[in-house]
Amino acid sequence: MATPPQTRSPELRKDPVTNRWVIFSPARAKRPSDFKSKSPENPNNNSSSSCPFCIGNEHQCAPEIFRVPPDPNWKLRVIENLYPALSRKLEHPNVQSGDSSNDLGGWGRVVPGFGFHDVVIETPVHSVQLSDLEPSEIGDVLIAYKRRIEQIKQFDSIKYIQVFKNHGASAGASMSHSHSQMIALPIVPPNVSARLDGMKEYFNQTGKCSLCEVQSKDLLINETSHFISIAPFAASFPFEIWITPRYHSSHFDELDKEKAVDLGRLLKLILKKMALQLNNPPFNFMIHDSPVQVTDSELPYSHWFLQIIPQLTGVGGFELGSGCYINPVFPDDAAKILRELNVPIEG
Amino acid sequence: MATPPQTRSPELRKDPVTNRWVIFSPARAKRPSDFKSKSPENPNNNSSSSCPFCIGNEHQCAPEIFRVPPDPNWKLRVIENLYPALSRKLEHPNVQSGDSSNDLGGWGRVVPGFGFHDVVIETPVHSVQLSDLEPSEIGDVLIAYKRRIEQIKQFDSIKYIQVFKNHGASAGASMSHSHSQMIALPIVPPNVSARLDGMKEYFNQTGKCSLCEVQSKDLLINETSHFISIAPFAASFPFEIWITPRYHSSHFDELDKEKAVDLGRLLKLILKKMALQLNNPPFNFMIHDSPVQVTDSELPYSHWFLQIIPQLTGVGGFELGSGCYINPVFPDDAAKILRELNVPIEG
Repeated sequence: MATPPQTRSPELRKDPVTNRWVIFSPARAKRPSDFKSKSPENPNNNSSSSCPFCIGNEHQCAPEIFRVPPDPNWKLRVIENLYPALSRKLEHPNVQSGDSSNDLGGWGRVVPGFGFHDVVIETPVHSVQLSDLEPSEIGDVLIAYKRRIEQIKQFDSIKYIQVFKNHGASAGASMSHSHSQMIALPIVPPNVSARLDGMKEYFNQTGKCSLCEVQSKDLLINETSHFISIAPFAASFPFEIWITPRYHSSHFDELDKEKAVDLGRLLKLILKKMALQLNNPPFNFMIHDSPVQVTDSELPYSHWFLQIIPQLTGVGGFELGSGCYINPVFPDDAAKILRELNVPIEG
Repeated sequence: MATPPQTRSPELRKDPVTNRWVIFSPARAKRPSDFKSKSPENPNNNSSSSCPFCIGNEHQCAPEIFRVPPDPNWKLRVIENLYPALSRKLEHPNVQSGDSSNDLGGWGRVVPGFGFHDVVIETPVHSVQLSDLEPSEIGDVLIAYKRRIEQIKQFDSIKYIQVFKNHGASAGASMSHSHSQMIALPIVPPNVSARLDGMKEYFNQTGKCSLCEVQSKDLLINETSHFISIAPFAASFPFEIWITPRYHSSHFDELDKEKAVDLGRLLKLILKKMALQLNNPPFNFMIHDSPVQVTDSELPYSHWFLQIIPQLTGVGGFELGSGCYINPVFPDDAAKILRELNVPIEG
């Protein structure tokens, strides 16, 4: 017999971390457990013969920044993006707190597009996905992010580094070979400013870091020694997941090797669960970090996390116009389904 | 012989209206004139026999709010959404300046999902699109928005009304019969707050309304007696277009019948141009209005506009993470192409 349909009333929630309102609207949904991707990824269908990210085709790529290990039999490579969104060759802008740039006839502001846009090739093998790697190998990818952040943050004009992964064409991936990207910006982007404002407000009201306090049992999916995965209180998307350090940490590049393997284990588990429950959906993940030039006063309330968004619903005019998302799945329902799903992980 | 590729350097722009940074990155693009939709809409392929929005099938719809004219041979109908994002049956929340709501164990805020979610059926005929209507008929649709706004704003707990249109399945339209939607919210959504902050800052610096000052020749597409269409200075999307009144107006529902027909004429022209130049792309349009309960002090800098976004590029982890968009087409290039395109319009 089918479970009776949802009877919860719609509600709006504002997340203190993202500082954003979300509409939870179960009336528009099928049962949470029925959510499946309609356009699942099948990466093993792809041909590798002409893929520049495959081992042996390095000459087809933009210049390499480093590889691990540093020999021909590499396991991962960090390279420049062949079509960078920003240019590392432009004059470095000097944007003092985002306020001293040029202006154009008094209307609007312009900053030269100086920055870095790099690609992390996560594996030499075309058919291997990030979640196929061993926890220690995923740890190596995370440590590569850390190492590249440490290099880039030497540039004073870089204010923020966005690490992200697009998996699947409809999630924005133009290459099917498993990779992630890093864009280093001469500004602090709007979502980051809004997040810092939200976290600061929570800290000022409670004296505590919002993400240190996030550990609600209802929202928990899985945890490891150093990390916790949750469905966030005001998830913008159905089955959105956050992984956050249990210890207070403002910057991702504070991650050490042991914690990177621990995070690799949890990330692998969550990606496997998501693929199983949601029919291998296209997805994005993003590391929400603190700005590079963060002041000491920001450190007590700024706590990094990794956000995973499976692509299950589209975005329309309402979301584009208002900046509010409509989520048909309450996060405690999503957390329960993923928490109770059993996926064995070795390593 | 092909035109040489773009040689402009990337740059970041911050729009004083949206208060948002955008990366212009021509290196990632084909020539601006080569942008075409890869998944054009072909609405006439759709069957109308089972469409509840078609004339004669009114009994299949959620309750009607009003029709124009008020007889069986209607030209447009405003109805409730069968799957509303918010409920008109809930207790009205009392969110004083967004601050007095419940909180959940001190972490996050919750507001009951009271609100309205209506559908405007723009034509009785399944195969007719909004841009096929006469300017006076598009004017009737705009006047229907105005009339419904005037009804909804009687509810003190409604703080903002988002009017929007999704055209094409990949732009979020679940019905192919031409329609638009209105969602009335018990909060002021984040994009609206950010926009009001941006417009206020400009006003405080210059003493002028940012949108009254927007009329740059380079960004102009077309104009009529009362309206101007432009490619905005910091467009988030390629070929994004704004239509804004030339006269200062803070609220859309100040529109009168004559101005509605004038706006209908410009909207028809722009939609026709967009379809011709960009291969009939799916698109969204949104009316960016002032909050319903706006204070007098906000009126001098708050100016409504209609934003049109053709769906030509996808959104990935960078945009989701940072809130910054990467636009491969500079707005003056988009404006020139659309300005010089010749589309005859009668009516």
